[in-house]
This record gives sequence, structure tokens and C-alpha cells, in this order.
Amino acid sequence: MEGRTGGMEGKLVMVRQELGGAGGSGHVLTRDSINQNVVQAEYAVRGKLYAAAQARSKAGKQVILTNVGNPQALGQKPITFPRQVLALVTHPPLMERAKSLGIPSDAVQRAQEYLAAVGSTGAYQDSRGNALVRKQVADFITRRDGFPADPDSVFLTDGAGVGITLCMRTAIRGRHDGVMMPIPQYPLYSATVEVMNGTKVGYFLDESNEWGMDIAELDRAYNDAVASGVTPRIIVVINPGNPTGMCLTMENLKDVLMWCARRRVVLFADEVYQTNIYKPDTRPFISFKKALGELGGSAQCSTELVSFNTVSKGALGECGRRGAYFEVVNVDSKVVDEIYKLLSMNLSSNVDGQIYVGLMCQPPVPGDPSFPLYNMEMNSIIESLKRRALRLARTFNTMEGVQCTEVTSSMYAFPQITLPPAAIEAARQAGHKPDEFYCLELLDQTGICVVPGSGFGQKDSTFHFRTTILPPESMFDDIIERFTSFHAKFMRQYGGAKAKL
Amino acid sequence: MEGRTGGMEGKLVMVRQELGGAGGSGHVLTRDSINQNVVQAEYAVRGKLYAAAQARSKAGKQVILTNVGNPQALGQKPITFPRQVLALVTHPPLMERAKSLGIPSDAVQRAQEYLAAVGSTGAYQDSRGNALVRKQVADFITRRDGFPADPDSVFLTDGAGVGITLCMRTAIRGRHDGVMMPIPQYPLYSATVEVMNGTKVGYFLDESNEWGMDIAELDRAYNDAVASGVTPRIIVVINPGNPTGMCLTMENLKDVLMWCARRRVVLFADEVYQTNIYKPDTRPFISFKKALGELGGSAQCSTELVSFNTVSKGALGECGRRGAYFEVVNVDSKVVDEIYKLLSMNLSSNVDGQIYVGLMCQPPVPGDPSFPLYNMEMNSIIESLKRRALRLARTFNTMEGVQCTEVTSSMYAFPQITLPPAAIEAARQAGHKPDEFYCLELLDQTGICVVPGSGFGQKDSTFHFRTTILPPESMFDDIIERFTSFHAKFMRQYGGAKAKL
Repeated sequence: MEGRTGGMEGKLVMVRQELGGAGGSGHVLTRDSINQNVVQAEYAVRGKLYAAAQARSKAGKQVILTNVGNPQALGQKPITFPRQVLALVTHPPLMERAKSLGIPSDAVQRAQEYLAAVGSTGAYQDSRGNALVRKQVADFITRRDGFPADPDSVFLTDGAGVGITLCMRTAIRGRHDGVMMPIPQYPLYSATVEVMNGTKVGYFLDESNEWGMDIAELDRAYNDAVASGVTPRIIVVINPGNPTGMCLTMENLKDVLMWCARRRVVLFADEVYQTNIYKPDTRPFISFKKALGELGGSAQCSTELVSFNTVSKGALGECGRRGAYFEVVNVDSKVVDEIYKLLSMNLSSNVDGQIYVGLMCQPPVPGDPSFPLYNMEMNSIIESLKRRALRLARTFNTMEGVQCTEVTSSMYAFPQITLPPAAIEAARQAGHKPDEFYCLELLDQTGICVVPGSGFGQKDSTFHFRTTILPPESMFDDIIERFTSFHAKFMRQYGGAKAKL
Repeated sequence: MEGRTGGMEGKLVMVRQELGGAGGSGHVLTRDSINQNVVQAEYAVRGKLYAAAQARSKAGKQVILTNVGNPQALGQKPITFPRQVLALVTHPPLMERAKSLGIPSDAVQRAQEYLAAVGSTGAYQDSRGNALVRKQVADFITRRDGFPADPDSVFLTDGAGVGITLCMRTAIRGRHDGVMMPIPQYPLYSATVEVMNGTKVGYFLDESNEWGMDIAELDRAYNDAVASGVTPRIIVVINPGNPTGMCLTMENLKDVLMWCARRRVVLFADEVYQTNIYKPDTRPFISFKKALGELGGSAQCSTELVSFNTVSKGALGECGRRGAYFEVVNVDSKVVDEIYKLLSMNLSSNVDGQIYVGLMCQPPVPGDPSFPLYNMEMNSIIESLKRRALRLARTFNTMEGVQCTEVTSSMYAFPQITLPPAAIEAARQAGHKPDEFYCLELLDQTGICVVPGSGFGQKDSTFHFRTTILPPESMFDDIIERFTSFHAKFMRQYGGAKAKL
């Protein structure tokens, strides 16, 4: 802030000196004197690359942001039906004119229903979320899994991250509490655990086996943690995977649930990409709740499960709404009460986001006037994402020293790059990690902003980057051309992949 | 959750026993094994009274919720102009039809401007908020105070509570860090400090002096904290006051700012009620930023200031939007970077809320087509709130053993009640605090849900309750009749106010 508030600065420094302020700047709060858990937390998705991209953008150069899963920022059109409903709820006088505006009757009916349920979108709702929306969520889960869900086990939040943070806060007491998380992982988790003063315990996903989960590796990670004085009490599983694009099999899900029961570890299931499925026949999305339900009938699994979902992903892609829910299963009712109390400190999540959650969970069905357009729009987005996912992975696999697992779900590709020793040395000299160096060069030469694998975690001496599959198809030829020619030039410059360390 | 997930429960208990689960329930997470800071945090606004009100409501009985400042839940109509803009931004095809819908041209123009700025309301924005909105906030602050504000010192959040929590988290390291807060105070602060593992340090507001701040009392509180090993590093000031309805004078503001500089304490200014002003001539709202600016020219005050504002209060009353901003002043740029990083972990606040912040800060002005209606609606709400504020306090002052400071601002009255000893004894026998007992009786007999003073803090042996002034004027005669006849009956039953302890 120095110098930004006008001409006071010189005089302020004087007063600070008189007061004998701590630290050179004279501020009470300095980077050294604030909560060091905050300082230590790293969040790569908006880290060094994002800062470089912002600087580039300010300088008037083109930037293609593929660093965040933010489809509508890259031109994806919003689905019409929920926007119609939300516009009517926002400004109810429009309802009378809906017909002349071409807004179908079912949209009007849904708008009336939500308006009656929330009172006004300007009113706080119950802190765990509006009751109608929670019922729609519970009905959706029940239909999806074939096992019952209770509306009172559903909580609505301003984005899934809020729910994850809140549940982490409830469970974590200090450094001796461990949170197991995949490597690679979405860095929200490591950053949140750091801020909460817990200890992160990484388990490796198996890149050679489509980024699947290996129970022996979970045991390895658990035992290593215990040996160092940390007891894991939460395991985070991101399914479908971010950044890996993997989708776990029923067998894998059940193994993980039983492992949790054996080890007495609570399962946080990040299932926000559950409708971003590109091989539904061979790799469908299966929820942990469903796997738990199936186990309940046979192996009787007591695992405490919290599952997160959002309107930000899938074909809706309504990131800016901050609409999300989580469901708690097998969780002690007194703990649920504490979660409710914590939520109540923030009074209410945003009502537009809540309504969107309801619309996601109870979409138009065949026979509804809105169904044909809705269905066409949703399928068209998923089909397009599927084409992009497959094409991007295929392209990466044609590039020298690059290997990319097939992207069967989510919104990301996470290719591995074998970097030449000369590139690694050049990175060292420039003060960057090798994958950071590669990504900064990519940004500089092509305008494409990706996130280095080091931001997500990766096995030592391996290098990756994450890119979303979201740039519009009209740009895809161009983007692929940029990627491939940049990479070819980079490899030429630094001696190629064969010169492995 | 017990028994809610179908027929699994008996089997689950078996497995838990085999596993040798900790605690009687067999759960990994129990009230005793989770983060005890969470368990210890109390949040009275949605506490015992709210629970009783919910039970009453479920039983089909009438409840008049005056426990939360949630005007639109009590029938306050939304202001038309911002709703029109938001509907257009939500569903842009409506723009072409705006004229036929009676939506003025300036609303369309503003909608186009926001749509261009955000891309889509379904897209994440920069983590500190959309740049156009932050500029509008900075312009508003500059106009309001006559001192410059920098858009890069403004952060947008999902409600003011999120910003407060985030800044607290940044500043608080542990139990030795104190947060000074008024008694009485809005319990978000005590609860948040508890969850953050800081120490709350109460300073009393002076009820005999219109709930003003007394510098000697700040010194007393500070010194007592230091003597017990706690160093205050933040002071929270709620101005206009919640629950007190007070509005601080310029002299008081400057004294507090200078005290902060002397004591090296950071000032968190909760200024969310800044437009709820009912005596603008004698008790106008003055921001701490303005007082700081005036001091900067003379006494050169270095106080680090964070000021919070929201669309939830004022005449807008759009609680359900979760739109808010905070401005940091004199804060070290490296600390601002850390705040930005923390915000980035949640990616973006909700875009509808951001747009509402922009609309609050840049409203229609004379000459704009929307101005006459906007101005009329805004004034009508404030005038009505003013009538209700004055009337409610006046009524309380006619009641036996009740004293209420004039409500010159905010949305609350906080009357003191002298409870008869027999009532205090009856409360003890029922297992309630005396003021809780009074409020539960009020709820039971009238359906009116208020919050006991003990939820906000009060001097020992004094009792208060907080009620909002928000029930619609059409209900006011009835509500006042309920209050007065309940109170008279209560006092008769327990022997009257004269029988003081």
C-alpha cells in the first residue's frame, strides 16, 4: 500500500519511528509477524504463472488462460433454462411477460416455486441452505445412487471450496492430524491443510495405471505418517481426477472405503466433475455414496464420508455462481451440529447459487417444454468437451518426450514431459523449477497459460503441466499448432528428450 | 445421522466394535475428538432462541423473526433498479426486449457494461474481485470521504463475514494474540476469534453515554489483556453499532485512531450499517477512513485500517446476494499479497454479489431515467426504518423496568431490562440464563423471536435483548401490543422491577 494514499507516507514513517515500531516497515502486520501458516500456504493455480500471465495481459499481449477450469471465461455459452429461471426469480415482474419473451411455462413454474421457497433472493436462508433445494439435492442423490439421501445431511455453500474448508476446520486440531491427499492433487487441499495447521500426507496416484489408487500405497503413506508422529484422520479423493482426468472403478472405490474403515480415516470425496464423463460405457462415474451403499449390504462399511459437488463444473460450468453442496454420511449427529453452527456464523450462502444447485439437481425431464433445448445444449457441451479431451491427449502423445494418459473425465490433461538436461540447467540458472521454466517459456512464446506440475505435486524428477481442455473448438487448431511448434523448438534448443538425466 | 441411511445402522455398529472404535459412538469424528475451538465457539444469533423458534415453526405456530437483520424475509421489497440490471445480466437476450418490458435505458446500459466487464456471470473473476466493480467501490469511497481510495486496496467477498474471517486468519497466530471487541458485540467476532484460536478481549461500550467508546476503557482492557499474557493486535469497532444502534462522532473516531497508533493495534471497522442513519443532521455516519484522512493532515496517524461494507444492509437489504467489500488502508503491501493469496484459494466470490456491490457504489444519479423511482424507493425504506426505530425505542422506554437508548442508526434496538429476582430464580430453575428465560417466554407467548443480551455480552447483572426494527410497519401496532402486554404480564408474574436484586 506504500505511497498509495496520497502524500502522507513520509510523515507516517516519522510517527512510526517515534513509536518504535517493530520491523523495518513500522507496520504492526508484516509478512514476518502474521500467521505463518498463511504465509507457508502455496496456491499454484493462481501462482507464478498466473502473475506472469497478468503482467503479459497488462502489457497488451494475448493470453490464453487454460490454468483454471473456468469455461464461460473461454466463451462457453450458459445453458438457457436455468438462466431463464434465475432471471425471473431475480426480477419477478418479468413472470407475467414470460410467454411473450419466449420463456417456457416450466421455467416460469420453477421460478414461482423457488420464489415461494426463498421468499426473496435478497433474503438470508437457513444457514445450511434452503429446505426445498436441499430436498432436490437429496432426491438427486437418491436417484443417482439407488440409496436414500436425507435433506438434513445436505449443506449448501458458496462453492465447494467453502465446504471443504469448513469440514477440514472441524476435523483438524493441529500438526499431529494428517490429511492424506493425492499426488498430484488440486492445490486447494494442501493450501487449506497448511492454513488449518494440519499436516499433509501425500499418497501417489499410479500414472502407469491410468492414475488409479493403490491400496498398498495408501498403507505406505499412512505408515510413514504415523512413524513421524502424525495420524491421518482424513483422506481426500478427487474423483473424477483433477489434474489427472482419471475416473475410479467400482472395485477401486470399494477398496478405498474398506481401507478407510480399517484405518479409521474419514473420506472427503471431491466429486465435482461427476458429469464430465467422456467414456461413459467403460469409465462411468460412480459415487462413493453408491459404493458405500453396495458395501453396506455385504461388507458393512462404517466409513464416515463427506461428498462435495458444485454447479461450477459439468456442462453447466457456472463457476461465478458459487453454488455447491456437500452431503455427510455416517457422520456423528453432534459433529453435524457443529458443522451447522460453523456455517451459521456466515449466516447463509448466496441464494442465486442455491437455486442453481436446485436446478442442477432437478433439471427438465422429457415432456417438459424446456427439455429439448436443455438436453441439446447439455449434450452439445459434453460432446464438444469429449472431442477436445481426446484430441488434446492424442496431440500431446505425438510430441517428443511427452506422455499423456487418456482424459476420460474432468476438464484437464496432465501430460508428463521429459525435459532435456540443458533445459533443467537453464531453469536452475533462471531461478525457476524445471517445469515452471517450461511453462513460463510456453507463456512467453505462445500466450498459453498452463500450470506447472510442481503446483500439484509429482514424483521426483518427473515433470508435468496441467492444461484445461476448455479453449473453444474454434481455437483448437491454433492452440495445438502453438503447443506443438513451441515444444519442437524448445526441444531443439535444449537438445531433445533422449538426453535424459 | 444415526439411523438416517436406511437399514445399515445395526451392522455398522457391529463393524465399529470389531474395529475398536474410539468413544462410545464408534465414529472417528466425535464432539470430543474434533477441533475444540469449533466446539467452544458460540453463535447466539442462530442459537438457543433460533432453535426454539424453528421448533415452534415446525409445530405450525406463528413466529415473528426479529433475530437477524434480514429485511426481505420480513417483506421488504427489493429496490427495482439493481434487480432489473441483474436480470438482464443473468439472461442477456432480455436486453433487446428491455424497452417493451419497461426497463429504463440506463439499466440496460449498466447491464451491458457489467456483462462486458465480467464476461459472464457464470465465470470466475479475479480472486480479489472484478476490476470494474473495484474501481466503482474506490470511486464511491473517494466521493464519500474526500480522500482517495485505490481499487487495488479493495477486495470483494461473499458477504462481509468472509472478509472479516479472512483478515482475522491472516493476523492471528495463537492464544497470545488478542482481538479487542465491544461489549455488547455482534457475536460473529467472538465466535471467529475462538475458531481462529485467538483470545477475545472485551471493552465495554458506555451505555450511559449513548453506547459511545471510552478511551480509558480501551486502556483498561488493553492493560488487563497484557497482564494476562495476551497482546491485542486488532480492535474491532462496529459503527454504526450492532446491537447498540449507536453512531460514533468524529471526535470519538479520531481518538480511537490515535489510540490504535499509540498502542500499535490494527483497526477493523465494521461499517456495514453506514446508510442506516436516522438522525443524519446530528448523528451522521463518518467513516474511519475519513477520520484517518483528516488526521493525516495534522496528527499524522499511521493506524492500519480494514473497513468492511456490504449490500446486505442499508435500504438495499440484499442479504441473500452475499455481496461485500473491504478496503485495506496503511497495510503493508506484502500482507496485502497474503490476503490476496488466501482469497485466491476460493478462486472468486459470487459474481451477482459483485455486481450488486458495483450498483450500490454507483447508483443512478439525478438525470438518469432510473433515478426518480430509485430515489423514491430508497428514501421510502430509510424513512420507514427511521419511524420504526424511533417508535420501538420509545415504546420500550414506556415499559416497566426497561431502558432503551435512542436508535439513531443500524437496524437494532438493545433495551436493558431490570428483571425481578423471582424471574432470575425461575430462570435458574429452568436451566436458562435470566435474559434467555425472558426471551424464551416472549417467544412462547407472542411468537416474537429476539436474541438475549448474553449472546452479545453485557455488564454483569444487567440484562438486555436485541430486536431488529425490521417487521413491516403494517405489523407494528400488533407487535408493540404483543411486546407490551407480554412484558406487563411477565413483570406482574415475577413481582415487578422494583424488587431489584
